[in-house]
Amino acid sequence: MTRRDTREALLIAGMELFLEGGYDFVGTNAIIARVNGTRGSFYHHFDDKEAFALAVAEYYYEEHLPTLDRALGADDRPPVERLRRYFTALTRDFARHGHVGGCLLGMFGQELADRSPPARASLSRLFGRWRHRIADCLREARDRGDLRANLDCDETAAFVLDAWEGALMQMKLRKSGAPLEGFLRVVFGQLLTPS
Amino acid sequence: MTRRDTREALLIAGMELFLEGGYDFVGTNAIIARVNGTRGSFYHHFDDKEAFALAVAEYYYEEHLPTLDRALGADDRPPVERLRRYFTALTRDFARHGHVGGCLLGMFGQELADRSPPARASLSRLFGRWRHRIADCLREARDRGDLRANLDCDETAAFVLDAWEGALMQMKLRKSGAPLEGFLRVVFGQLLTPS
Repeated sequence: MTRRDTREALLIAGMELFLEGGYDFVGTNAIIARVNGTRGSFYHHFDDKEAFALAVAEYYYEEHLPTLDRALGADDRPPVERLRRYFTALTRDFARHGHVGGCLLGMFGQELADRSPPARASLSRLFGRWRHRIADCLREARDRGDLRANLDCDETAAFVLDAWEGALMQMKLRKSGAPLEGFLRVVFGQLLTPS
Repeated sequence: MTRRDTREALLIAGMELFLEGGYDFVGTNAIIARVNGTRGSFYHHFDDKEAFALAVAEYYYEEHLPTLDRALGADDRPPVERLRRYFTALTRDFARHGHVGGCLLGMFGQELADRSPPARASLSRLFGRWRHRIADCLREARDRGDLRANLDCDETAAFVLDAWEGALMQMKLRKSGAPLEGFLRVVFGQLLTPS
């Protein structure tokens, strides 16, 4: 493998393994072994386990971007409908994969927030990018009259993503799609309505 | 210390230490050392680390019950106002303590959901008890006409708690009360309204 391939293979292995049980659950040795790598190559690419995990978080978000773009990107559908389509597609994906894993950013957030300023900065930035995309979609909906005129789109986007993160945790705890389906009904039936 | 005192001291130490960085972040040795205990006394009370952590989760919830009772218990205030008082009190507590820790059940949920059926059962049961308390309060509000007549109180209670859990994670990530204050505004200004 080229250096670049090795780096990406490590990131993918990290993503898969961290999703099974969080940051501390998995050691760097297990990640290196998964790609038949060496400690030398790991530390060539990453300063330490935390720097690696934050690179994994970034990679995870970037990997998700095409899904987000496809669902929210401007097309003929009204913006709230595009948002619903986005979360509905994710709900279906989780059902197909047995309601495991949830969100890697949420897992890292829970474990690392109180002990690592770099993790706080890095994860907050990724959540912020995600939130801004949702907020832009809400603004588009508000501006065309699909949501009430005085809606705080940034605050509502933050709230929706928080509810989504909480629902993902319940999904994997209860091994059920019910929390995500409840999220869809409340968000699109009660919260994101014109009045 | 008596046996009972030792057990409770271990649970309190576990609660404090797990809240700093999650289940895998803390070893049993650190917990035992915190109470000047012995491995013998630890394993006299608990089968293993996971059984201990689930006992800590139960203790954590039980410790929280008086706060929940005080806020939601029937008094002259309308039920939605009692619910608002509950989450407002928690928001103030987290501000006073520097926006750290969040919710231990949420942390354990993230880490343990995909690897431990006993953790899933135990944490789901605790979340269920919490959710039922919120749902009862919503039913009381709905029955007196403070919420729309066809509101699904169980689903809405689940959604509100999911949003709260997500907001707690953002709170500790951003070291800010803004996510909790946003939660209060959206839940009590937009979601739990009569129409």
